Amino acid sequence: MRDILPGEKRTREELLAQIRALYTARGFQEIETPGLEDLERLTSGQGGDNEKLVFKVQKRGDELKRAIEEGGELADLGLRFDLTVPLTRFYATNRAKLPRVFKAIQIGNVWRAERPQKGRYRQFLQCDIDIIGDESPLAELELISASLAALDAIGLSSATIRLNDRRLLTQGLKAAGVTTNIEQAMITIDKLDKIGSSGVAEELGEQFGEEVAKAVLRWLEDSKSAELPELLAWAKDLGEYASRVRFDPSLVRGMGYYTGAIFEIEYPSVDASIGGGGRYDSMVGRWAGVDAPAVGISLGIERIIDLVDQPQKRAGSLVLLIEEDVAVALTKQQELIAQGLEVRLERKAKNLKAQLAELSEQGYESFAFLVSGAELEIRPLD
Amino acid sequence: MRDILPGEKRTREELLAQIRALYTARGFQEIETPGLEDLERLTSGQGGDNEKLVFKVQKRGDELKRAIEEGGELADLGLRFDLTVPLTRFYATNRAKLPRVFKAIQIGNVWRAERPQKGRYRQFLQCDIDIIGDESPLAELELISASLAALDAIGLSSATIRLNDRRLLTQGLKAAGVTTNIEQAMITIDKLDKIGSSGVAEELGEQFGEEVAKAVLRWLEDSKSAELPELLAWAKDLGEYASRVRFDPSLVRGMGYYTGAIFEIEYPSVDASIGGGGRYDSMVGRWAGVDAPAVGISLGIERIIDLVDQPQKRAGSLVLLIEEDVAVALTKQQELIAQGLEVRLERKAKNLKAQLAELSEQGYESFAFLVSGAELEIRPLD
Repeated sequence: MRDILPGEKRTREELLAQIRALYTARGFQEIETPGLEDLERLTSGQGGDNEKLVFKVQKRGDELKRAIEEGGELADLGLRFDLTVPLTRFYATNRAKLPRVFKAIQIGNVWRAERPQKGRYRQFLQCDIDIIGDESPLAELELISASLAALDAIGLSSATIRLNDRRLLTQGLKAAGVTTNIEQAMITIDKLDKIGSSGVAEELGEQFGEEVAKAVLRWLEDSKSAELPELLAWAKDLGEYASRVRFDPSLVRGMGYYTGAIFEIEYPSVDASIGGGGRYDSMVGRWAGVDAPAVGISLGIERIIDLVDQPQKRAGSLVLLIEEDVAVALTKQQELIAQGLEVRLERKAKNLKAQLAELSEQGYESFAFLVSGAELEIRPLD
Repeated sequence: MRDILPGEKRTREELLAQIRALYTARGFQEIETPGLEDLERLTSGQGGDNEKLVFKVQKRGDELKRAIEEGGELADLGLRFDLTVPLTRFYATNRAKLPRVFKAIQIGNVWRAERPQKGRYRQFLQCDIDIIGDESPLAELELISASLAALDAIGLSSATIRLNDRRLLTQGLKAAGVTTNIEQAMITIDKLDKIGSSGVAEELGEQFGEEVAKAVLRWLEDSKSAELPELLAWAKDLGEYASRVRFDPSLVRGMGYYTGAIFEIEYPSVDASIGGGGRYDSMVGRWAGVDAPAVGISLGIERIIDLVDQPQKRAGSLVLLIEEDVAVALTKQQELIAQGLEVRLERKAKNLKAQLAELSEQGYESFAFLVSGAELEIRPLD
């Protein structure tokens, strides 16, 4: 976990405001769920490996005492590890107040008790859009075009999307002779980027025999150069975005809950994906009683923020250096703000040079001394 | 804890964007700290009764096993109960990268394990500004004028501020004969709103004798009608806001860490305060090693949101009802968004009447059918 300092925080909030505005303009509605969910729900088998990383919150008062005495489960709540499990719970709880096709925006922190390592945080921000209640590919089309439009809006127009469908993976693996443990074969294929095709061939060989391994790799190789499969033909409707989506038969994505289309967002110069998602048609039913089709896409804000320029100076920012006349300073500040400036009041320090250097470092563009009766003389801070 | 539905969430985000913009224009800088802090820090005696309400997060892996075996503390982290303790920790950690006078904005959730009751949530949003490093009343003046300006901006210009100083309370109580347990006397005075002056007199009588109780009440009564005391004379510099601030000698505020000015924001028709704060000059030193003067003010967003109107319809929002031609619909949507509209794509349902009623319910203002080749005919949704 880490602190976010003023410069990064400002860039982050500006970026989120742009993404939020863009998603909202496309008819998505923002919601918020609590950071804490019932521990039982967070460990019910929907979250794959993430379930092992839940921060557990202790029971309180008498319940805790009883649990300790009886040697029972000491925790009853947990911090959410993603926004998808909470969303499906939200939908189940609030369905009556939501439109038949619900298009959700969620921007919120999630927590995972990972071992500290470079580039991984134990609290990080996710920005998800999901469509619940539409079983047609219109949902996929809306999510993909909204995500690419959002990335364009924040200056990341080189982002592209890899596309696959879980059903194609299953079909291909079956045709290549994988009859049991299909999930395990997918997990191995998912390592293609890391261990290469020879590594994948070896691992599949150990699991399913050499013949099957060869057949799987041949199938992956053949489908790579193939046309967009029928199941993904809807992607042609993407219009201006069609050229930024490509079929990747080896794309798996880790989560066990995906049932159809899956996608991952790539950016040149970035090894890992900067976002991803897919269709998870059988998850809502777990809490809602009634199944509802669902598909979602998530932007990895921590990675995206590293790709966005942080301006050195803030346009229109001014430090008003004052000595005594506080009341006049407060009035003057109001006046300058009304003219569109960002105005910081600051008592003039004895070491003026150091003070100005520090304010320049903080991104202020200009400064002025408040001298009563005199016109304000605004000078640049360099 | 509760879910926030689309209508409220939109109002809430619009309101926060306005407050954020206003504070930023006055030279405050937004930061963010993690939701989790070391449990030791959260229970070190700075947070008064709130320390009893910390949600504790269990240790993990071997550390948890060891703690269970040894009967030690099972938790090592906790969810923050306010934004002030984390801010002072943040300042201690990041001091070298911050300006000498640090003016912070924090907007974030806090958690308290309260018993469920009406109007109290176990997760709620706080919006704080603090100034660290300025021992002069310029800091108080900036905080009060910024808060009132923020409340004005969101339409709550009837908000007023009650003002006192902890040192005045101490002086007055001493003069009235309270020589020990001054904190306890303050806690009793703090109940004035709830139990009235006869209740306070009784409780003080039990604690300090009838004579002292009478003297305390006489002092409170006398100071009420008195001029602004010398210690609070700075408030005259508030200019246009001066008339919205009034001295209240009986204002205490719960937290033990206040050392100087204290304030509470009131709004007509609301029983409880909608915000408050004060000076806490000796708190930063606990983590930073070096003391730094500090003062802060917090807006209670959950209460404020109830005072702000939630619009029934969103201006410029349109539902585009489509049948088949998805690619055309996506292009048309882009086009209309570029014209400044909020556009939701929706497949035309069999029961059109019910569909339109539902969309109207969701705040959409108008709808149109997408008919290829034909001009779009936008009609109101009522």
